[in-house]
Amino acid sequence: MINLLPSPLRRVLEDFEHLPGIGQKSAQRIALYLLHQSPKHAQALSRHIAELHETIHTCPECGMLTEKSRCSICSGSHRDKTLLCVVETPLDVLAIERTEEYNGMYHVLGGTLSPLDNIGPEELNIRKLTDRIEKEEIQEVILALNPSTEGEATSLYLKNALENKQITVTRLAQGLPTGAALEYADNLTITRALTGRQVVT
Amino acid sequence: MINLLPSPLRRVLEDFEHLPGIGQKSAQRIALYLLHQSPKHAQALSRHIAELHETIHTCPECGMLTEKSRCSICSGSHRDKTLLCVVETPLDVLAIERTEEYNGMYHVLGGTLSPLDNIGPEELNIRKLTDRIEKEEIQEVILALNPSTEGEATSLYLKNALENKQITVTRLAQGLPTGAALEYADNLTITRALTGRQVVT
Repeated sequence: MINLLPSPLRRVLEDFEHLPGIGQKSAQRIALYLLHQSPKHAQALSRHIAELHETIHTCPECGMLTEKSRCSICSGSHRDKTLLCVVETPLDVLAIERTEEYNGMYHVLGGTLSPLDNIGPEELNIRKLTDRIEKEEIQEVILALNPSTEGEATSLYLKNALENKQITVTRLAQGLPTGAALEYADNLTITRALTGRQVVT
Repeated sequence: MINLLPSPLRRVLEDFEHLPGIGQKSAQRIALYLLHQSPKHAQALSRHIAELHETIHTCPECGMLTEKSRCSICSGSHRDKTLLCVVETPLDVLAIERTEEYNGMYHVLGGTLSPLDNIGPEELNIRKLTDRIEKEEIQEVILALNPSTEGEATSLYLKNALENKQITVTRLAQGLPTGAALEYADNLTITRALTGRQVVT
């Protein structure tokens, strides 16, 4: 049936279906939407996608995405250079920046350790992390990896790797998220909220 | 915060967010995925999107999408040319073809009447429909529009427009969808299932 569609459309549908979070129906809606809009619209999208790899690379200091020689955080003068927050992806940097509560530096690993996918310490931005800790004036490293199995394993690996450095290694607090119902929280979350309980002041 | 991202990435994020069914988070995931894949991948997607409008147009007979002078259904010789199924979009043709229960011809309106959006009969592929009914050997027109307010209004308009032609005008049955629970069906669906009830044979 899908052969009823012209082949250029089938190619775009296949491309879209391979993108994360897009299924067959979404791919069809998007492709038909593009065909329904003026050609200029699709041309602009096409051009912007092509330009992605042309100008964007990772910052040699922290691994954040940038089009300049260093990213805007690394080249900024108003950031606290004694604090270093280690995250998995560039999106995590955005998530933390959105809180407007953090003014330190970042280090983007580019993923987590995952032996099954052949991702070891060499595949992540870890060597540069230890380099930075030796050369820069960093006093505290905040491990802000996802609270998933891979994130936990990577945090543990980093904690061990940074053990002999003269720095404090901290991690994000785990517990109940704001607005959650205790009743529906999973056991591990409640356990961590209990063990990490704080004195009411 | 979003200003932390390089501008080519921001442009792609904006483009993606304007596509139907894609929100901010999905746009970020897709853009990061493209950056993470090899440049070839993004280049291919870019090229395929650009090619959409270059080769695809609507079939002059039925309004289906095609890259040839006529679509594969209109130029096919094994279809029943006395039956004409009127649908809103090319995706509806695919949905009906998927059932493998229909072997007639199609006519794609390209939308529904929607006075608020300035879509009147002239904006839809309706004049060509009446032309076809006069010139071709059509005996039955099946109105297969969506059971939405706009679809119903368009069906009514078409029924009136086709009243004086020597053809049968039918519409898709309305009632309970397969697998539905009567308990959760809305009033209108149950009403239509009742009024359209069939003798058990």
